[in-house]
Amino acid sequence: MYKIQLSSDDVPTKWYNINADLPVELPAPKNSKGRDQISTLPDIFVGECLNQEFSTDRYISIPKEVREIYQQIGRPTPLYRATKLEEKLNTPAKIYYKREDTSPTGSHKLNSALAQAYYAREQGIERVTTETGAGQWGSALALACSMMGIDCTVYMVRVSYDQKPFRKGVMQLYNSTIHASPSTNTEVGRKVLEETPDTPGSLGIAISEAVEDALSDDNVRYTLGSVLNHVILHQTVIGQEIKTQLEIAEEEPDTMIACVGGGSNFGGAMFPFMKDKIDGNSDTEFIAVEPSACPTLTQGSYDYDFGDNVGFTPLLKMYTLGHEFVAPSVHAGGLRYHGMNTQVSLLTHEGYITPKAVHQRDVFTAGQMFANCEGIIPAPETCHAIAATIDEARRCKETGEEKTIVMNFSGHGLMDLKGYESFIDGSLENSK
Amino acid sequence: MYKIQLSSDDVPTKWYNINADLPVELPAPKNSKGRDQISTLPDIFVGECLNQEFSTDRYISIPKEVREIYQQIGRPTPLYRATKLEEKLNTPAKIYYKREDTSPTGSHKLNSALAQAYYAREQGIERVTTETGAGQWGSALALACSMMGIDCTVYMVRVSYDQKPFRKGVMQLYNSTIHASPSTNTEVGRKVLEETPDTPGSLGIAISEAVEDALSDDNVRYTLGSVLNHVILHQTVIGQEIKTQLEIAEEEPDTMIACVGGGSNFGGAMFPFMKDKIDGNSDTEFIAVEPSACPTLTQGSYDYDFGDNVGFTPLLKMYTLGHEFVAPSVHAGGLRYHGMNTQVSLLTHEGYITPKAVHQRDVFTAGQMFANCEGIIPAPETCHAIAATIDEARRCKETGEEKTIVMNFSGHGLMDLKGYESFIDGSLENSK
Repeated sequence: MYKIQLSSDDVPTKWYNINADLPVELPAPKNSKGRDQISTLPDIFVGECLNQEFSTDRYISIPKEVREIYQQIGRPTPLYRATKLEEKLNTPAKIYYKREDTSPTGSHKLNSALAQAYYAREQGIERVTTETGAGQWGSALALACSMMGIDCTVYMVRVSYDQKPFRKGVMQLYNSTIHASPSTNTEVGRKVLEETPDTPGSLGIAISEAVEDALSDDNVRYTLGSVLNHVILHQTVIGQEIKTQLEIAEEEPDTMIACVGGGSNFGGAMFPFMKDKIDGNSDTEFIAVEPSACPTLTQGSYDYDFGDNVGFTPLLKMYTLGHEFVAPSVHAGGLRYHGMNTQVSLLTHEGYITPKAVHQRDVFTAGQMFANCEGIIPAPETCHAIAATIDEARRCKETGEEKTIVMNFSGHGLMDLKGYESFIDGSLENSK
Repeated sequence: MYKIQLSSDDVPTKWYNINADLPVELPAPKNSKGRDQISTLPDIFVGECLNQEFSTDRYISIPKEVREIYQQIGRPTPLYRATKLEEKLNTPAKIYYKREDTSPTGSHKLNSALAQAYYAREQGIERVTTETGAGQWGSALALACSMMGIDCTVYMVRVSYDQKPFRKGVMQLYNSTIHASPSTNTEVGRKVLEETPDTPGSLGIAISEAVEDALSDDNVRYTLGSVLNHVILHQTVIGQEIKTQLEIAEEEPDTMIACVGGGSNFGGAMFPFMKDKIDGNSDTEFIAVEPSACPTLTQGSYDYDFGDNVGFTPLLKMYTLGHEFVAPSVHAGGLRYHGMNTQVSLLTHEGYITPKAVHQRDVFTAGQMFANCEGIIPAPETCHAIAATIDEARRCKETGEEKTIVMNFSGHGLMDLKGYESFIDGSLENSK
């Protein structure tokens, strides 16, 4: 069986909330620097998203309209068996991958973008703001806002804005307004431009601009594409679908693998499987794969830190490389975050998640092998999961274990081919 | 129902050959210029493809290995209902679209590329050559050859080679060798470079180089991505799947719409429905949509002409703008061909196909509307079919007809965003 396809009726009706099942209590967010960041949150975020952020209900119903649009954009996504890759590796392992690349914007990001845009509109919010680096999140939010009929403003890091005109084009096609960040649109932006007119920008500056913009008008809110619990909550449609698909295939996962940046594709795929492990009813291994150039889980400390790098957010207990850490510009732009979702952090600290760091050249080597076997060109972020999957399948070849490996294929790489280009021409480095 | 999804078992087992059911005899190819082009065909083309080209068998079995790879790359592709587009247009028409963009290379081209690469390998051919302009065909052939384990050389028109580095990157990732054409690799190329060192190249030159390369070695053959009967034959998996899907939806198509360049996505989707019309058992309208800038079917003459523009091919009876016609550089590079598949030409001449030409700005306007309703960004070629579909749905609104419209969504536009960019910034012209 190459493809395990569910019907539209099988789109989950509820999201799963890991807060209900954590093995120890989640450390609460804290204020800092004498400021009360926590009380400003309702002015920054959409109300229902904030409720979900701190909810401990195990299941939260997916609104009818959101579920229908999930169906319209092709959910449930298929689960594929990587038979050609297995043949190439000559492994006794069985490799499955969940096709989140089949979304119109090419990644899992739309699952949360649609929910956030929906709740914003329901609250009477007229416009949402966000930042984007690589562009996957910005594209998804732009489409979601277009579908929900609200406006969208994206602050895109200047260097990406200049280097990725097509990403910008996609967001504009979906009727969003795009500002190269730093922009003259905000106080933060104008200040940075005055001091350093030639700055390439940073995600930190772009976040600050998007938040300032949201705070400037009561009809505007800020949205985020990863890191927070409500974002991962929306992504749990992935893992719930995988569960149903594995039942059809009569498989139990021995190993589940996904890449981690802020944690949203990882948590979305894994959390629905986590309760059984926490309860001692499963020994599935959950592998979180990050770049060696931004080794948050493998080399960071488990500590309180800011979610952004100017201190707009409360302090969060998480694995962090320090909020002033600037990761080298690896091509997997989606994985260059200094911190990590608090739930993923806690579960890693408690030993339920196995973190792993991989080098950039190995990542693209794995991506090319996958593309030539299975056809699909993976996003650089997704290549991290593939590299770990190939390692695991090779280990199975040595040991003879017939493991069932399930990987979350978070997105395709068709709009991020620059990395492959430098990989092929030999100029790609391991730490840049 | 948003999505009509078949199972892997439903991939057709046979291709359908329109030659068996044409209403009048197909005019045979002719030699010209005192040369015997017909007898050189076996040195140019793979033997089984040439057999299929002239076969009159109604069905030709799909080899087991090809059918399995069709399954692996996700066939059958889903048929979607465009409910949001219908709502936006407030039309009583029902609009369905066949998702050929879900292939790993983003278009229908892989259906024939896999078959051609398979037959080449079975014949003991070690390498195939081809030309590519926009890059959809080159990418598909590169992947197909990689999957079949044979080499692939692509002559890519110089201007595309320079302007579309990512398309080149995709083909290299799939292990193909790419030459900017004109190249120093062939006599034709060297001659052109000597006379006009700064030439941007043309599809005609690239074809000539690919054919010369194939003729230079008995272990090498040339492949083509459209125009010929065997190519459309391989594409008839599309139409056969649509038939099954419409039966499930309990629909009869009133209007079927696809874009036409050489005719492969059009014929692939339509031919399996054509016999009923030829036999007088159906009055489905088949609309073939072409750019006003390259109006082969709407303004060309039905006459004998060369398939290429240097005269390597026999003369073919087809609609043509003249083999020396150079279409303006519209963004739908896949539709810039001076001629047309002979079977599509004959059926148009006999009144079974309704040709229609659309202007470039209307095409992108339609593409943007589709993207914002349905999420997917269409290839510029596919936007032609969408423009005609929207016209038809609007006509239904005026007349109140509840027509069932079925459109072939031939490919996504994620690697061809340049056209959208100039559409959005206002610089797009209608005839360039």
